[in-house]
Amino acid sequence: MSKWVYSFSKEKTEGNKDMKNLLGGKGANLAEMSSLGLPVPPGFTVTTEACIDYQKTKSFNDDIKKQVEEALKLVESSTGKTFGGGDNPLLFSVRSGARVSMPGMMDTVLNLGLNDETVEALSKKSDNERFAWDSYRRFIQMYANVVMGMSHSLLESTLEDLKEAKGVDSDTKLDAKDFKNLVKVYKQIIAQETGKKFPTDPMEQLWLAIEAVFGSWDNPRAIKYRQLNGIPGDWGTAVNVQAMVFGNMGDDCATGVCFTRDPSNGEKKFFGEYLVNAQGEDVVAGIRTPAPINECSKNDSNRSEKTLEEYMPKAFAELTDLYQQLEKHYKDMQDIEFTIEANKLYLLQTRNGKRTAAAALKIAVNLEEEGIVTKEEALMQIDPEALNQLLHPRLDPDATKNIIAKGLPASPGAGAGKIVFHSDDATSMHENGVKVILVRQETSPEDIAGMAAAQAILTARGGMTSHAAVVARGMGKPCVAGCSEILVDSKNRTMIVGDKKYVEGDFITLDGGTGEVIEGEVPTLDAEINADFAKFMAWADEIRTLRVRTNADNPEDSETAVKFGAEGIGLCRTEHMFFEPERILAVREMIFADSTSHREKALKKLLPYQKEDFKGIFKALDGKPVNIRLLDPPLHEFLPHELEDKKELAEYIDVELKTIEEGCERLHEFNPMLGHRGCRLGITYPEIYTMQVTAITQAALESIDEGVDVRPEIMIPLVATAKELSILREILVATIEQVRGDKEFNYKLGTMIELPRAAITAADIATHADFFSFGTNDLTQTTFGLSRDDAGRFLTEYISKSVLPSDPFVSLDQEGVGYLVKFATEQGRNANKEIHVGICGEHGGEPKSIDFCHRIGLDYVSCSPYRVPIARLAAAQAVIRNK
Amino acid sequence: MSKWVYSFSKEKTEGNKDMKNLLGGKGANLAEMSSLGLPVPPGFTVTTEACIDYQKTKSFNDDIKKQVEEALKLVESSTGKTFGGGDNPLLFSVRSGARVSMPGMMDTVLNLGLNDETVEALSKKSDNERFAWDSYRRFIQMYANVVMGMSHSLLESTLEDLKEAKGVDSDTKLDAKDFKNLVKVYKQIIAQETGKKFPTDPMEQLWLAIEAVFGSWDNPRAIKYRQLNGIPGDWGTAVNVQAMVFGNMGDDCATGVCFTRDPSNGEKKFFGEYLVNAQGEDVVAGIRTPAPINECSKNDSNRSEKTLEEYMPKAFAELTDLYQQLEKHYKDMQDIEFTIEANKLYLLQTRNGKRTAAAALKIAVNLEEEGIVTKEEALMQIDPEALNQLLHPRLDPDATKNIIAKGLPASPGAGAGKIVFHSDDATSMHENGVKVILVRQETSPEDIAGMAAAQAILTARGGMTSHAAVVARGMGKPCVAGCSEILVDSKNRTMIVGDKKYVEGDFITLDGGTGEVIEGEVPTLDAEINADFAKFMAWADEIRTLRVRTNADNPEDSETAVKFGAEGIGLCRTEHMFFEPERILAVREMIFADSTSHREKALKKLLPYQKEDFKGIFKALDGKPVNIRLLDPPLHEFLPHELEDKKELAEYIDVELKTIEEGCERLHEFNPMLGHRGCRLGITYPEIYTMQVTAITQAALESIDEGVDVRPEIMIPLVATAKELSILREILVATIEQVRGDKEFNYKLGTMIELPRAAITAADIATHADFFSFGTNDLTQTTFGLSRDDAGRFLTEYISKSVLPSDPFVSLDQEGVGYLVKFATEQGRNANKEIHVGICGEHGGEPKSIDFCHRIGLDYVSCSPYRVPIARLAAAQAVIRNK
Repeated sequence: MSKWVYSFSKEKTEGNKDMKNLLGGKGANLAEMSSLGLPVPPGFTVTTEACIDYQKTKSFNDDIKKQVEEALKLVESSTGKTFGGGDNPLLFSVRSGARVSMPGMMDTVLNLGLNDETVEALSKKSDNERFAWDSYRRFIQMYANVVMGMSHSLLESTLEDLKEAKGVDSDTKLDAKDFKNLVKVYKQIIAQETGKKFPTDPMEQLWLAIEAVFGSWDNPRAIKYRQLNGIPGDWGTAVNVQAMVFGNMGDDCATGVCFTRDPSNGEKKFFGEYLVNAQGEDVVAGIRTPAPINECSKNDSNRSEKTLEEYMPKAFAELTDLYQQLEKHYKDMQDIEFTIEANKLYLLQTRNGKRTAAAALKIAVNLEEEGIVTKEEALMQIDPEALNQLLHPRLDPDATKNIIAKGLPASPGAGAGKIVFHSDDATSMHENGVKVILVRQETSPEDIAGMAAAQAILTARGGMTSHAAVVARGMGKPCVAGCSEILVDSKNRTMIVGDKKYVEGDFITLDGGTGEVIEGEVPTLDAEINADFAKFMAWADEIRTLRVRTNADNPEDSETAVKFGAEGIGLCRTEHMFFEPERILAVREMIFADSTSHREKALKKLLPYQKEDFKGIFKALDGKPVNIRLLDPPLHEFLPHELEDKKELAEYIDVELKTIEEGCERLHEFNPMLGHRGCRLGITYPEIYTMQVTAITQAALESIDEGVDVRPEIMIPLVATAKELSILREILVATIEQVRGDKEFNYKLGTMIELPRAAITAADIATHADFFSFGTNDLTQTTFGLSRDDAGRFLTEYISKSVLPSDPFVSLDQEGVGYLVKFATEQGRNANKEIHVGICGEHGGEPKSIDFCHRIGLDYVSCSPYRVPIARLAAAQAVIRNK
Repeated sequence: MSKWVYSFSKEKTEGNKDMKNLLGGKGANLAEMSSLGLPVPPGFTVTTEACIDYQKTKSFNDDIKKQVEEALKLVESSTGKTFGGGDNPLLFSVRSGARVSMPGMMDTVLNLGLNDETVEALSKKSDNERFAWDSYRRFIQMYANVVMGMSHSLLESTLEDLKEAKGVDSDTKLDAKDFKNLVKVYKQIIAQETGKKFPTDPMEQLWLAIEAVFGSWDNPRAIKYRQLNGIPGDWGTAVNVQAMVFGNMGDDCATGVCFTRDPSNGEKKFFGEYLVNAQGEDVVAGIRTPAPINECSKNDSNRSEKTLEEYMPKAFAELTDLYQQLEKHYKDMQDIEFTIEANKLYLLQTRNGKRTAAAALKIAVNLEEEGIVTKEEALMQIDPEALNQLLHPRLDPDATKNIIAKGLPASPGAGAGKIVFHSDDATSMHENGVKVILVRQETSPEDIAGMAAAQAILTARGGMTSHAAVVARGMGKPCVAGCSEILVDSKNRTMIVGDKKYVEGDFITLDGGTGEVIEGEVPTLDAEINADFAKFMAWADEIRTLRVRTNADNPEDSETAVKFGAEGIGLCRTEHMFFEPERILAVREMIFADSTSHREKALKKLLPYQKEDFKGIFKALDGKPVNIRLLDPPLHEFLPHELEDKKELAEYIDVELKTIEEGCERLHEFNPMLGHRGCRLGITYPEIYTMQVTAITQAALESIDEGVDVRPEIMIPLVATAKELSILREILVATIEQVRGDKEFNYKLGTMIELPRAAITAADIATHADFFSFGTNDLTQTTFGLSRDDAGRFLTEYISKSVLPSDPFVSLDQEGVGYLVKFATEQGRNANKEIHVGICGEHGGEPKSIDFCHRIGLDYVSCSPYRVPIARLAAAQAVIRNK
């Protein structure tokens, strides 16, 4: 016989805190607290499996029925009360409780078991007629709504009418007689509306209530919530049936909520609110203003109220004792619900409290210092993504926000400024001290300077790995991308959202953490890095085995990343260096060269620029490895689009405009992602790579002379066959040998693994490579056959329909793309014991993907500078999780 | 000690015909013939390994020297002659001989061993002074050119001057004295030109000659030839040193070449030419007209000459006997060189003779009928690709051709006609009985009708799997694609090649088997299918285990394919059905629909068309499986490009032109290959697939009522995850169930495997699929990260530089893409024992790829109709090869 029901009481408790999947979070914690001997009203939990079983047959099997009845008897004997009769009637609360908290999504019924007889017994027993009849009318109101499906408003408005007729403004001013009348009227309305009599048999009440809670798992708002939060529909919810205790039985009764530490900043202070003579629902409903439980919980709106400490010192002392016990037991800050009935304290729920990132950090560090948790436990308490809040400015949570549109949260942080539509304008306004937001249809490498000058970036097209998103994350700039609700008209310098037009100079604010676009200038709070942060990150560094590098293309970003703890550069994209105005003409001349010698001439102009770039980066990374990727994008990405630029180029290289136009046409590609790029350029135009490697070698030699410890790694992109790598290796090694002459110069030469074929033939490729770096952006594109620039059209629908569990450009697809990464790592290491293996795709900064990288034994991950701390923590958590 | 030298003589022979890699083709066959006791002049072969060794050190090691000297002694004792002296001097021919024949690419020296003394001995021994001195001057002339590097013309013109001075027109009119003088003059010229004396020591002559032959392996024309024919540079050549026999010692001497069957049509008749009193070189040089060896070798130009049969009946009888022996021994038609010295017959070479495809077929069938070869051996004699010659019209080989450009040989066959630049013109001119060649920059689905109307298609862009190439092969039309030498200006209806302009109406001829574009109208020969062909293909069908299906999209192509032996359809692309003028508007209306119901309305218009298409195909394939792929290409492929068409559409669906233009803009994709296509359309717009499946089901039910045996297989394209397939399967099965009502209807539902992720997760996918079909075109694109539309820019260079062994879109990349195909097949079969697995990419018709498919155990291959016979033969050969 399956076990469908688990009891909890001081006499017998069958569950514990680790049984959340079966008992739900609430049920598991009630059982745990009971086991600890804490004052929890007894009850029982009907399991999530019973829910699933019920969903299938829409009825309860005999075993469930029998087990509920047995558990009910245990509650009766534990409380000395009788359900459905006698002079000391037992009442129940019936609450849902899923594996994870789904606040407000499912239903609750209180005071279950009342009817015309038991209400009289309760009245007599409590010696409080008003309380008994108030409880009864509350029960009917809730039950009618939750179980019988009546609209909430109908009974509520009857209550309001009554108050109006009596000229009072609060329920507390109604007396027992009022509630008796109300019960009568309620029953009539229910009979009218539903065609059913209100059930008077408590057992019938109970079964219908359990059924209703199970049914609420599939109500539309619960389904929607699950979709939004990625909660599987087949988990089901448990139902907790618990003996009622009453915070509303008189002035020696109260109910409240408390946190063991301050959830907004993490300070070690006990903190909470309570209401005298009230039920829990009243605190939530906000009808009365709750009072502070102690001095330090006081604020401007409740400063005059009496604290619980003053009002019920004994119960408060007991609560203080219990919260400390709970925190030690759960090893985390707790969010506790309590009720005091006739001066006796009961705990109704405890759970790990929600908190801000800053609070989480402080709490974790303090708990370790207090000896409550180990370093490892402290590290596991913080969601690595939450560090984003600490590393970036954020919106003042108290400010009002007029949200006008929502896009993808492409790069975290908040920024406010004046709208500009052109990168040039962004740069010049920034130079004049004006804060600007760059708004573009989409960005291209030509916008880099404008992006750097802006407070934040907003684009109408492009996904989480679009150019704007990738570059903004690298710069640590807030970015909202792919905001399809806005219409950008950069020619006329306007942006239309809905039916409102914004012009250049209008203020907007972006929240890159949520994707919100807000009208006007919302105040922001600065990043919150402090000593706790440093201490915490040092623990992470102690424990992790994965190295963390950064993706950075210039000295400034490199310095930022090192400050954030980067242990090297995992990807330096050399093409980003090509776009500065004084260089781009030479790049274009190179593209239009009609002979190798002409191309070499143009490349010679670029050489000194590249050399200086590399010197700056070597200096910033003194002593740490710098992985430099040779030219990757197809040449047409560098071509001019505007007629004016084309004319300038024609003049510069002294050809006819027609030649430029034909060249642009000729270089057009149908699928540039799969085109003439990466090492394919290196094979067809070896002089390009030769120039780059010359610049690297010269920069390294000069840096060495200046006392810098340089460790360059030269990386060849888009390799599909071992032959490509062996050909290029031969050419590049020869170049290096020639440039270095008789000087000492150590370097590594390796390849991206970013095509399925490279992963499959990794064993061959490894024999020509000192390292592999997985370019999981492109590997995801090719493995899925999915262009990240075009996926927006259907990817959202794919995720909402659960075709994909998540965006594979955000979190590595472990089953498909991950299989290739693992396979290539194994094959590569078998073929070349010395090979060093890392990942430099966007996934290198995503915690789940980092866990995967740890499990398959990569040497390092690489991510944008601002994600380095996130990666460090995620890498440490991976060690702990996979121990 | 390594063995560098292999002797052959009646006394001792060390090699055999299977040692071609070591001894070269000529050396292996000389050894084989010696072993058989045939009259082969004795000699020895210096191996290809010796060549490689020589290339490394540029000198001969001691072992080689010793072994050559020993082998030379054996020849002396076998012939009773002495090398370099005595009264019976031994002379040698020194010839190259690589693994595969490289005709005319490397060098030969005859009569080696002559000097001022041995020439006198030869004169005395042969009693023919003229012969001796003629041989000497021939030797000096050849040697000076081949070994000493002098230009051929200098000594040749001296000979010409002499003839002129004597007033004779032929060498035969010169006498001994003339040749003596010539020898003297030659030596002077050589000393003058090279600064070296002509070597008189026969041993020195021999070593320098061997060195020269080894060196000729790396002469520019040999390197070029190897590149063109894919022969590795590290094979090297062998050198054959063989005792000279003389066809030029008098009128009882002769030399000739013969074929054991007619190489042009395969008829069983002995066939050849000879010259009295001549050396082999004279036959090739064409100075004298050779005579026929027998009656049936006579032709218009030699009818008056005496046959060998008449002139030397004994030698002829012996030759007849020997050729029959050789053919039986080699089990193939032989190409034999012979020399008759003083009425004694010698064989100098035998090899399998080159032949036309028609001849090859006849010979193979006859050899089997004569009991010389088994069926299996007969099947292995024909290169499957050669069948193309039999299935398509070809250019008359005797016609003169003015080749103006060369493109990719995209679809075999030859066609001539008037140039047209627009599909509409092609159609209308064709209707008026004019033969046309459609010339386009590139073709799109809108050109289908024009392509069908044309004799052949020429495009300036696109590779072997471009639209033009794929569709042309499907239609069996000749096509030359990617011919970058032509500039197409379709607006002005001109085509420029070099500096010549061609206008609409000018005649051109295309050879799709070679890629040649020829000016004017070249006569063509018809396809040559006959009873031999049927018999031969029946043998192939008996032996092969792979089924062969076809890729066909309409009833006509389906019928053609069935005629060629297709056992089903492996790929029916439904989108090709969308382009006909009366349908395309409804397709476009569907794309522009702004709601599901509007889309369904537009789709309803398409339903009857699709249904009729399927009925036609089911009828053509009666009893055979028909695999139908649901819509695959991105929707923007169906959008209008021309303003006029956009206007027409706007009117048709009653919206503003602006809406159409915006829609076209909105649907644009950066990488359409990786975009919103395949099952991604099916997931986001299920109504499209629902319509298609409804059409299939209705067509099937109606066909069944008409007595047709229908076996539809419904195929879902571009699946990346098992979930996509399971979602669509559920929707489509429900549709089918609804449409079929209570009628019996059997079908299969499966998927393409054309993305790396699908291959990797094949085990999961297989649980939802009745079959897999490998779409190796797209799988190659994604595995390599290589767009076939853009690869042209560098793929040629990749192949010429040996970065890739061959075009992976033509021959399956077995190491990379093949790995995924094999892996997915194994995983799929493990997960689903019933699963049926085939391939429908272009590789399904390529012999090497078919061999691979056989080895990994696929159930079938599918290819374009005209390649079905090729696939049938290749599949049979795969069985034999892999036994």
